[in-house]
Amino acid sequence: MTEPRVVGLKSPEQAVPRPAPTGLEGDGTVHDAVRDLIATYHDLNPTTIDELHEEPSPLEFLRYVARNRPFVVRKGATSWASHKKWNAAYLSSIMGSIPVNVAITPHGNADSILHLSPTHALFVKPFETAIPFSTAQSHIQNQELDPAWSKHNATYYLQTQNDNLRGEYATLFADVPASISWARIALENDADAINFWLGNSGSTTALHKDNYENVYVQVLGQKHFVLLPPVEAPCVNERAVLAATYACGGSPESDVLQKEDMVANIDGAGEGEEEAYVPFATWDPDQPEEHATPFSRYSQPLRVTLEEGDMLYLPALWYHKVSQSCNAEGLCCAVNYWYDLDFTGGFWASSSFVRGVGLLEEQRWREAHEDTENGAKQVRESTWL
Amino acid sequence: MTEPRVVGLKSPEQAVPRPAPTGLEGDGTVHDAVRDLIATYHDLNPTTIDELHEEPSPLEFLRYVARNRPFVVRKGATSWASHKKWNAAYLSSIMGSIPVNVAITPHGNADSILHLSPTHALFVKPFETAIPFSTAQSHIQNQELDPAWSKHNATYYLQTQNDNLRGEYATLFADVPASISWARIALENDADAINFWLGNSGSTTALHKDNYENVYVQVLGQKHFVLLPPVEAPCVNERAVLAATYACGGSPESDVLQKEDMVANIDGAGEGEEEAYVPFATWDPDQPEEHATPFSRYSQPLRVTLEEGDMLYLPALWYHKVSQSCNAEGLCCAVNYWYDLDFTGGFWASSSFVRGVGLLEEQRWREAHEDTENGAKQVRESTWL
Repeated sequence: MTEPRVVGLKSPEQAVPRPAPTGLEGDGTVHDAVRDLIATYHDLNPTTIDELHEEPSPLEFLRYVARNRPFVVRKGATSWASHKKWNAAYLSSIMGSIPVNVAITPHGNADSILHLSPTHALFVKPFETAIPFSTAQSHIQNQELDPAWSKHNATYYLQTQNDNLRGEYATLFADVPASISWARIALENDADAINFWLGNSGSTTALHKDNYENVYVQVLGQKHFVLLPPVEAPCVNERAVLAATYACGGSPESDVLQKEDMVANIDGAGEGEEEAYVPFATWDPDQPEEHATPFSRYSQPLRVTLEEGDMLYLPALWYHKVSQSCNAEGLCCAVNYWYDLDFTGGFWASSSFVRGVGLLEEQRWREAHEDTENGAKQVRESTWL
Repeated sequence: MTEPRVVGLKSPEQAVPRPAPTGLEGDGTVHDAVRDLIATYHDLNPTTIDELHEEPSPLEFLRYVARNRPFVVRKGATSWASHKKWNAAYLSSIMGSIPVNVAITPHGNADSILHLSPTHALFVKPFETAIPFSTAQSHIQNQELDPAWSKHNATYYLQTQNDNLRGEYATLFADVPASISWARIALENDADAINFWLGNSGSTTALHKDNYENVYVQVLGQKHFVLLPPVEAPCVNERAVLAATYACGGSPESDVLQKEDMVANIDGAGEGEEEAYVPFATWDPDQPEEHATPFSRYSQPLRVTLEEGDMLYLPALWYHKVSQSCNAEGLCCAVNYWYDLDFTGGFWASSSFVRGVGLLEEQRWREAHEDTENGAKQVRESTWL
């Protein structure tokens, strides 16, 4: 093809393509790109959670899934039998002596980071054992209502998350819908897991994310959620943390475990075994100055409290920290439905990319600040144990 | 709170958190992160486009929007009046002498990169003028059907993209639906622009992306789409390219512009003016070895041909290159509906992040290879004009 004549070119150099503008603030580095991602996300999205007052249609729900944005349906589950019937006496009458798996920790800190010093930490899983449901429920209530009881005793939490409402708690399953119709239709899937949770205000679920679309329904008491969108992965200071598991170190003959009898056993500490490191968020949005990354300051957590009968759509890959308040009987009870995350499209791949680039940039930043940090670390290390 | 005893710790050092595994292949660099993003996307998504045989419901459509994945509805628009009535005689009878904006280029290359040498390029916009519709249509047909005519004459294309079907072509608008109901309901929006396109096989639309959800309907002839998902931004070698505009340099008295009379005028070449640089993809998936980035090789373009009456959902931010084939009358005619992209949620912010990090990494890579490239460039520069 004949080239057309070019008119007005001042020099050949002028027609050499230049780098395209990245649109980034600052010096235009990867660091700037990560910061701008989080800032842009917040510029474009509300800092509050949408509140609905009736359940959405499948189409309305899917609009939230498409945006990966949470919402709460106030009083969306007040017609459920669970809302009308569940209380301490009813739960006990149905579940009675059925053995259930209970998670026991000294301070209500299952599956969470235990900071041994500013620079040393463990990821500690709970001591798990099976006891009759009524016993577990009574421990949970006593701890909440009786300061003398709770002073020395460990924290009990029923929180198996293995589809337990169709397993251990199957006799209670009739009191809730077998699926959430708008979620099932929109996502073209039945719930992958339906879980029953019973605990008290002593337990907190540490900041983490799940590969699930989550519909969370409060039955008794309140749950307090702190929510971070997936683009805030660079804020949470995910690190590989040495794994440990709580065990009963002292008086196993006692039927109530005491805090001081619990020890954190390092996993794989035995002869010929190898320790394990669990990737986990080490930053806590409620203590934002500690264990922060250079991006933590850009986090804008959403906070929402679920009252009895409220439903929350907690979108896949959102970080969430959950604490609880009890009803007058000393119980906090919830049910949640997990639906498989859709790994197709670009959402999963892009979220992994954000996490990966964030980790690389955090690591680069740490290494650039290593000299200073090492100085401080040596001082702290001498006093940590 | 009392710390529990820790059992099995071999040394304090063991409890210092490590960098979390990024999961990246290779050395774990930003370069690897970009490559893995593209590879992961393709691992999780089909390499073919979904084919439907009837129009989707709003919910079915929204599932595609949520995934940002295209589909084609074979024969989805065969009931439209446009499909039944439009042909050369009908279009002429309705539009006749109404003046319409026509884009004129020497080689059917409106809004595309003109490579002056391997290292020099312009982004050239078409010469635009208004002529009677019948004249434009007849030029388009002659060029397709009469080799003698097309040998010397320029290429004409009706492609205004400014909601022209409700403007210049309003008299034809009655022959198509005012909106696509499933898109309108799912997206909660009327079409932002509805466009009419009439051209021939001489015109190609260069690889680019739009900030719109696009429903594209073929009326006459065929369109051949090459589609790249937004995560492939690092493949397309977006650069800031010197802007120019075609003009008629020779015999303006002629009613048909000739190729050789067209010149590319550099924009802003006049006294006291400043040149402009347009960010644009410089890589062509049909010539993958040329102007490639280190990531272009990971591109897996989807290809689909629209036949008369077919509809395509072209998701927002997908790169697309479009070429055309004519019907027996020498015409290729289409209509498309643009719906606003939803900038909320994480999609827009994440796509911008991918683009930004990709550009930074491409630039870093170019600088690392600059010495070699400069050597080659000097040789080429001496011969480029």
